[in-house]
Amino acid sequence: MASGKGKTFAALPGENIWFSEYHAASVKMSWRVEVLAVEQSPYQRMVVMHNPDFGVFFTLDGFLQLTSRDEFIYHDMIVHPALAVNPDIRRVLIVGGGDGGTARETLRYPQLETVDMVEIDEMVPRLCRTYLPQTAAALDDPRLRLTIGDGLAFVRAAADASYDLILVDSTDPVGPGEGLFTREFYGECYRALTEKGILVNQHESAFYAGDLREMRRAHEKIAAVFPIAEVYGFNLPCYSSGYWYFGFASKQLHPLRDQQAARWEAFGLATRYYNSRLHAAAFALPSYVRARLDGSAEAECGAAEE
Amino acid sequence: MASGKGKTFAALPGENIWFSEYHAASVKMSWRVEVLAVEQSPYQRMVVMHNPDFGVFFTLDGFLQLTSRDEFIYHDMIVHPALAVNPDIRRVLIVGGGDGGTARETLRYPQLETVDMVEIDEMVPRLCRTYLPQTAAALDDPRLRLTIGDGLAFVRAAADASYDLILVDSTDPVGPGEGLFTREFYGECYRALTEKGILVNQHESAFYAGDLREMRRAHEKIAAVFPIAEVYGFNLPCYSSGYWYFGFASKQLHPLRDQQAARWEAFGLATRYYNSRLHAAAFALPSYVRARLDGSAEAECGAAEE
Repeated sequence: MASGKGKTFAALPGENIWFSEYHAASVKMSWRVEVLAVEQSPYQRMVVMHNPDFGVFFTLDGFLQLTSRDEFIYHDMIVHPALAVNPDIRRVLIVGGGDGGTARETLRYPQLETVDMVEIDEMVPRLCRTYLPQTAAALDDPRLRLTIGDGLAFVRAAADASYDLILVDSTDPVGPGEGLFTREFYGECYRALTEKGILVNQHESAFYAGDLREMRRAHEKIAAVFPIAEVYGFNLPCYSSGYWYFGFASKQLHPLRDQQAARWEAFGLATRYYNSRLHAAAFALPSYVRARLDGSAEAECGAAEE
Repeated sequence: MASGKGKTFAALPGENIWFSEYHAASVKMSWRVEVLAVEQSPYQRMVVMHNPDFGVFFTLDGFLQLTSRDEFIYHDMIVHPALAVNPDIRRVLIVGGGDGGTARETLRYPQLETVDMVEIDEMVPRLCRTYLPQTAAALDDPRLRLTIGDGLAFVRAAADASYDLILVDSTDPVGPGEGLFTREFYGECYRALTEKGILVNQHESAFYAGDLREMRRAHEKIAAVFPIAEVYGFNLPCYSSGYWYFGFASKQLHPLRDQQAARWEAFGLATRYYNSRLHAAAFALPSYVRARLDGSAEAECGAAEE
């Protein structure tokens, strides 16, 4: 979440507290939780909790990252749309994604040759291996090459045209994820992508003013680098506003015009959120989101506070 | 909301409290509010509040109904899809909708001949006229015939084939709205609709178990009466899970096959959520929602608690 500030306090294992995340200054969502683990790395503070309705979830610096209940939505939507546009993707780089969920969905495609992943903080995969095996098991797949290091530095060092797909599964544009929202980073991704390459990155949301600001900033920078830059959304109940967006950027392939539904369906993957009809639907933005993204109607949404 | 229980306590005007709505037993959303009005009718208790981020909103028996910040989304989506499928709609019945927002969007169409509205509780339009003029102003439009009375009785008394469109803008299937979720009510709507008639009704949501139960119950009853019964969704940040559904039922017209985008656009309505691309998108359901609606995979969504 870019807006507001979530706060979590250490509690003894077994103790019940409410964890709250502020979606705006006067709006919050709260989960009754048992705290399972608290740890501070050089980069951030991670708290793992359990909630009866959402299962295991964790926060980084107080911001909720994923829950075991609805992570399937996020991970379906960061991975499958790109593979439906280019079913021949063979070389993938995942930037961030230390929980392993993005790797898990990526590794379902049999034709993959290379799956590199660069995660800045060894703490995230380590604690997820213990508390979120449903996502973290993929981290131990022998086809995945996991590097602990800086995403920007990793992409800078990548050879030209070395990836067909780069998935940026980052935290918000504050803290250790900040470098992944820069013009330089997007430029390096462009260089490291093949001619049919696709960049997918997390794009915040569009309803609350703070989230929208980040969404527009990311989108403008990407659109300055990639000839095709679109945005698509999905209903993620655990995140601010219940609706989150990814950016789809590429050199040649258009996410709708080039969708290869039949070829994607031939993979035979059972997915619980993504499907071929939903693919185009996810790119159809509400009018106020389209207007805000284009910068044509900043105040379109009615709140005087904006 | 069908699941959990929201509670609101009377507070002195000017006093700041947090209003919370439970989305599930261990998950809640909270708004810092100033209470503007509290009133009990023979049917329900209405509390009007103000929140800095969502503006004015009100609850009925503790359940949030709408906020001035995002009501445009709900009212766009209950009205415009049907008018895009049949742009010749002339006679409309609104059941419920005492806040006036559904009437406001309906009355934007110049060809309308009859707009009847039946609302059970005079308190709702009365307090909305004072506190929510942005929605309630439509209630005083001379083209609207507002009846205070029971929706089921009103439809029973309607002549055969007297409406082209019935919009059921009700509360949840508990309390005074209960009769609007019965097989009898849907049958009476069928009878009162013309051959090209369309019924749109509120359908709860699909993520939390309690909401889903109501959604499936409503959908099954409607599908037993109408040959065409589809469901469409939209991102409503103030509601449970952030995503809400309406049902689209009709005798002949299919919401996708019969969409008349060019004719709808010729109306020239500026809408902040609905648009012609979003129309089809709203009917593309996530795979787990489709499965749950079809009853084919009750436990598809991962939560052990379901």
